Amino acid sequence: MGDTGNIVAFAGGVGGGKLATGLARALAADRLTIVVNTADDFEHLGLHVSPDLDSVMYAMAGMENTETGWGIAGETWSFMEALARLGGETWFRLGDRDLATHVVRTRRLRAGDTLSEITASLYAALGIAHRVVPMSDDAVRTAVVTDTGILDFQDYFVRQQAEPHVRGFEFRGAGAARPAPAVEAALADPSLAAIVVCPSNPFVSVAPILAVPRIGAAVRSRRVPLVAVSPIVGGKAVKGPAMRMMLDLGIESSALGIARHYGELIDGLVIDRVDAALAGPIEALGIRVHVMDTIMRTAEDKARLADATAEFARTLAVRG
Amino acid sequence: MGDTGNIVAFAGGVGGGKLATGLARALAADRLTIVVNTADDFEHLGLHVSPDLDSVMYAMAGMENTETGWGIAGETWSFMEALARLGGETWFRLGDRDLATHVVRTRRLRAGDTLSEITASLYAALGIAHRVVPMSDDAVRTAVVTDTGILDFQDYFVRQQAEPHVRGFEFRGAGAARPAPAVEAALADPSLAAIVVCPSNPFVSVAPILAVPRIGAAVRSRRVPLVAVSPIVGGKAVKGPAMRMMLDLGIESSALGIARHYGELIDGLVIDRVDAALAGPIEALGIRVHVMDTIMRTAEDKARLADATAEFARTLAVRG
Repeated sequence: MGDTGNIVAFAGGVGGGKLATGLARALAADRLTIVVNTADDFEHLGLHVSPDLDSVMYAMAGMENTETGWGIAGETWSFMEALARLGGETWFRLGDRDLATHVVRTRRLRAGDTLSEITASLYAALGIAHRVVPMSDDAVRTAVVTDTGILDFQDYFVRQQAEPHVRGFEFRGAGAARPAPAVEAALADPSLAAIVVCPSNPFVSVAPILAVPRIGAAVRSRRVPLVAVSPIVGGKAVKGPAMRMMLDLGIESSALGIARHYGELIDGLVIDRVDAALAGPIEALGIRVHVMDTIMRTAEDKARLADATAEFARTLAVRG
Repeated sequence: MGDTGNIVAFAGGVGGGKLATGLARALAADRLTIVVNTADDFEHLGLHVSPDLDSVMYAMAGMENTETGWGIAGETWSFMEALARLGGETWFRLGDRDLATHVVRTRRLRAGDTLSEITASLYAALGIAHRVVPMSDDAVRTAVVTDTGILDFQDYFVRQQAEPHVRGFEFRGAGAARPAPAVEAALADPSLAAIVVCPSNPFVSVAPILAVPRIGAAVRSRRVPLVAVSPIVGGKAVKGPAMRMMLDLGIESSALGIARHYGELIDGLVIDRVDAALAGPIEALGIRVHVMDTIMRTAEDKARLADATAEFARTLAVRG
């Protein structure tokens, strides 16, 4: 697959981590750049937490906790117990092992290193050879506009368990944010063959990446196919609040709703076999469809979906 | 004991924590102020660590790790394992539970709270009713002058395991440091009956407290007895590098050496039964001596030594 060109993938947390793991298995390290959402980063207990960068990292390192769907397998919770005893905030749970990531990252950010540099070190330390980069080294922060007010993303998602009714989103800082250097380089690389949007939340994982102006512009002016993998299977989000957000926003919670939402942004959509009946209506929108099993449970599932998605992208006509 | 006056005790880490625990058992909460050395505080991994404040806190809360002599009993080490995997600094070991203390303290310091305020909250959260205060809310940092150069205290003590030959000490910032408000109030309180120096390292635990100018001045101009408990028993430090420091500095490593070192600063010295033969030579220096078992293994040992030390102090003539 070495002469088939490079792939840039946009990823959020869990779904992004799974497909990123498959893509890393399918492609050589110099053929792949995973661009990760950082708009749900936040400062907690004085530590800089990057949930999506860490979910992708733990997934690619084979350390992810498949039971909880977040954090590290075999995690321990002594820190949280002690924190609770001291009367500290416990609504956002930081595991003892996970904490090392936040402490190292925070310390280096305070020392002036960029999030890109720190991310490269952390991933390398865990043996991940492929390039994974934050969408931006500048701060972009998702705020969720709800019926009960505008909430910071983690407040909405974790503290309030995604219960407030969603009206929209703000990506604060996005307008002035520059792409991380490796993102811009990967999108401008003449060897770029396709862009893949992982089965991540379209509103709070993918949209913030595209809200970074020079990333959005590069995507819109691209000369390569862009293929998304639907995060909605059988009408439901595989993981996370995407379905609830779609319902709140009046968007049909289905692969067709995803297709309509992405619209002209995407050239192709990979949908699950259970949604095969939606292939016709989606293709009627001018979006090509590939139907297959998209639920990623095993390493083989991830590699198969990654392989098929990359291959599907290559079959699509080069935009002119 | 309610009408016998107040006690102020100066404490370092482990020995200080033991006698402080005994004093807290012997005295009502409004009769005791424990003043703790903060000159071996340091910033590590971006966290503010206060080793002596924490050793005293864990001891008084009954949480201390009696096997290691530092940290928390039943501690877990997942954070350190993960940190090592990420290539982080592991020479100073931070346990998962202990980490909660540092994270809470660091966050509140960054938010502008004083070390006194934070210490009061942390101790209260762990159910400690007695007043324990840092010597100063200003930064004082011990540097150890050695044959191999001037070292930060934790570098000397932990990283280099107290091996470099010691020539002296610098208490950086001490000259400009103000006593923490509660320290000054306790020393000026007309109900003050005695000052107790815990069996802590004279050079790096007690000396920095006295190096805070207004504490040193208040001690020198006191009108109450000052009694120390010898940290040297049978010619050896009960814990820590005191013996080695005394040898390096050309001071006899014995209770007599301690008496000569403190000299006119102290009115009385509590020495262990094994050092009874030194009572005469010490009294010849003008320092009154009380001989008893001073090794504190059990809660009863701590209370007995605390009771006897307070009682011994009361028997000494009030300075005029």
